[in-house]
Amino acid sequence: MKVNRDTGNAKHSHLSELPTPCLLIERSLLIKNIQRMSKHIKRLNCRLRPHVKTHKSLAIAKMIENEGPCSGITVSTIKEAEYFFNAGYTDILYAVGINAHKLDKVHALMKASCDIKLILDSTEAAGQLIDYAQTHNVETPFKVYIELDVDAHRAGVKPDSEDLLTIASMLNDSRFTTLAGVMTHAGASYSCFGLEAQHKMAIQERDLSLLAARRIRHAGMPCPEVSIGSTPTALALDDAHGITEIRAGVYCVFDLVMSGLGVCAQGDIAISVLGSIIGKQTDKDLALTDAGWMAMSRDRGTSEHPTDYGYGVVCDLHGKSLKNLTMVSANQEHGIIGQQSTSTDGSFNPGNFAIGERVRILPNHACSTMAQFEHFYLIDKDRVIDKVPILRGW
Amino acid sequence: MKVNRDTGNAKHSHLSELPTPCLLIERSLLIKNIQRMSKHIKRLNCRLRPHVKTHKSLAIAKMIENEGPCSGITVSTIKEAEYFFNAGYTDILYAVGINAHKLDKVHALMKASCDIKLILDSTEAAGQLIDYAQTHNVETPFKVYIELDVDAHRAGVKPDSEDLLTIASMLNDSRFTTLAGVMTHAGASYSCFGLEAQHKMAIQERDLSLLAARRIRHAGMPCPEVSIGSTPTALALDDAHGITEIRAGVYCVFDLVMSGLGVCAQGDIAISVLGSIIGKQTDKDLALTDAGWMAMSRDRGTSEHPTDYGYGVVCDLHGKSLKNLTMVSANQEHGIIGQQSTSTDGSFNPGNFAIGERVRILPNHACSTMAQFEHFYLIDKDRVIDKVPILRGW
Repeated sequence: MKVNRDTGNAKHSHLSELPTPCLLIERSLLIKNIQRMSKHIKRLNCRLRPHVKTHKSLAIAKMIENEGPCSGITVSTIKEAEYFFNAGYTDILYAVGINAHKLDKVHALMKASCDIKLILDSTEAAGQLIDYAQTHNVETPFKVYIELDVDAHRAGVKPDSEDLLTIASMLNDSRFTTLAGVMTHAGASYSCFGLEAQHKMAIQERDLSLLAARRIRHAGMPCPEVSIGSTPTALALDDAHGITEIRAGVYCVFDLVMSGLGVCAQGDIAISVLGSIIGKQTDKDLALTDAGWMAMSRDRGTSEHPTDYGYGVVCDLHGKSLKNLTMVSANQEHGIIGQQSTSTDGSFNPGNFAIGERVRILPNHACSTMAQFEHFYLIDKDRVIDKVPILRGW
Repeated sequence: MKVNRDTGNAKHSHLSELPTPCLLIERSLLIKNIQRMSKHIKRLNCRLRPHVKTHKSLAIAKMIENEGPCSGITVSTIKEAEYFFNAGYTDILYAVGINAHKLDKVHALMKASCDIKLILDSTEAAGQLIDYAQTHNVETPFKVYIELDVDAHRAGVKPDSEDLLTIASMLNDSRFTTLAGVMTHAGASYSCFGLEAQHKMAIQERDLSLLAARRIRHAGMPCPEVSIGSTPTALALDDAHGITEIRAGVYCVFDLVMSGLGVCAQGDIAISVLGSIIGKQTDKDLALTDAGWMAMSRDRGTSEHPTDYGYGVVCDLHGKSLKNLTMVSANQEHGIIGQQSTSTDGSFNPGNFAIGERVRILPNHACSTMAQFEHFYLIDKDRVIDKVPILRGW
């Protein structure tokens, strides 16, 4: 005799009925965050190419698209490209440096009429792309953005380098490639605390991208797209003149890293993990929950912030922060809840929890926490509206 | 027109053909590690209740069972219990403190003839269990181990406390529960460097568990099972007299945390992530791979070890460590490879990598890295033997 492992879809209608641990997204906050970015991009008279890597959810992508002003999507894996393409998205930027091993799948997408764009930052990668196209008789040219390094953060070619023009020439000269433009991600903005620092980084990201585009055009080549973005710089930018598209992802749900940087308020965080209290260690003022690092992820994104929230901020079932409580440490299926500081009067003692009581935990990093789950529950206060699948894997 | 997202099973026969990032397990090392524990437990004249939470794989569970001497399995989620029960495992210990929300599923397993055992560490949880059984007319008593705290690590009741006997009495007196024994997990062993410290912790874990069992029996109650374990203490224990079962999980594949503690050699680590080089930042002596934290997980388990390996040790395609290279940092789909120290002669320069070249990365923590994947490739040197599914979720 076997047991049924599927709990079904519309079985649970109230937060208190959900199996724990599970992932919650508060619809009103999700909509508020999506509208904030949408209005901002409209004010900038620009277009948004939302990054789906945070949510990997068709439902959220649709909500973002409905608010506009979008031009296609950004993906972080070929599997995301395939998933969203099969759901009707044709204009897709795969924003991780391409290498030849992935070109069979890219080619299959192109043959199915997907308008996929690639990125690269070296003559070596450009050469491999052209070689592949020649060897495999690729009919349509590969569309390629040159990735720029505007902040010494990760990848990209320097906007003022000779390499930029060499790569641009290779892509422009080959009948197997189309030079689609330049793109960058100012990942250094994740270390910019406060609007002033974020604004400065946004200007740097914008101006160095525009410099690269000017140099390519000045050399007689096209550079139709100038694509920039990260959630902090996107929201801090006040003039997008010359920029054709802005990419951002985490803004739709936000997280403790974003509120720690001052990009949002803690009250804007739409995502939380629901856990049940499974034990107490009253002599140590600790409580245990069944949401461990398997649910929260191992991300400790606030560990170097002025306020370190451990593995997350502990709230009651209704999402109200239990002020001084955080998940101070985590094992695979155990979250250890303790007091962040023992000083405040009226602080909540973990020993006051009842076994089976439910808590909601705001995560450090939405991208890594969402990736731990197969689905999330869309909620409206205590009411469960929908159970929504999340893509995973490569 | 849609594209096919499934790469199929037996498509790839060589490491160089696998899509990246992906998860590899070297069969010869897996077998060696399984046999090491099996022989050790046999020498101790004890039984092994392997923890499946590391691998969540029927194939690996079967290999462990075949070597023996096993008595059932240990699981960390109800979903694991259901999955392994449906595959034929009936003797299952769910080793996370139970709370009433999960009892519907536990009850369903029991009604399907699963011999599932629960754990708890408070009169409050015991009371809820008895209440549930009364309310829901549970025919078979719940079998319960009392969880012990032997190392102030996480959960459990103190072996010398009055609470132990109070809980034991509740479970023993109620017709709805059976007192199955005591269990503990000396998680503090993950901070024990070297065999001497691990042996000391193993003795502590064993002796305090035996103390708890003696006290329960002295009070006239049964305590058939005395269950202990963690990979470091299991392997360090040299006398298991009085212990009925030993639990361990990560030993089958090991990881950098285990080699850092001296529980295994780095060469024993059977698990690695295969990545492709996608870029180079030669001015910074860095290379980029498509295995980021989504593949490695965010686990930084060696961060407080004498040697911090960042997000992992970088090896060539054949698994040979590129001595001074580690993944120094990680973004979602980018791993940044750099030199751990710049001192050594003949050190490998990341700039020497070719775009598309493949590397294997040994992870900090096997449990968290395996959880990032839907399947692993079982390999024999360069040859791909099988593609094996991994369970996820709750």
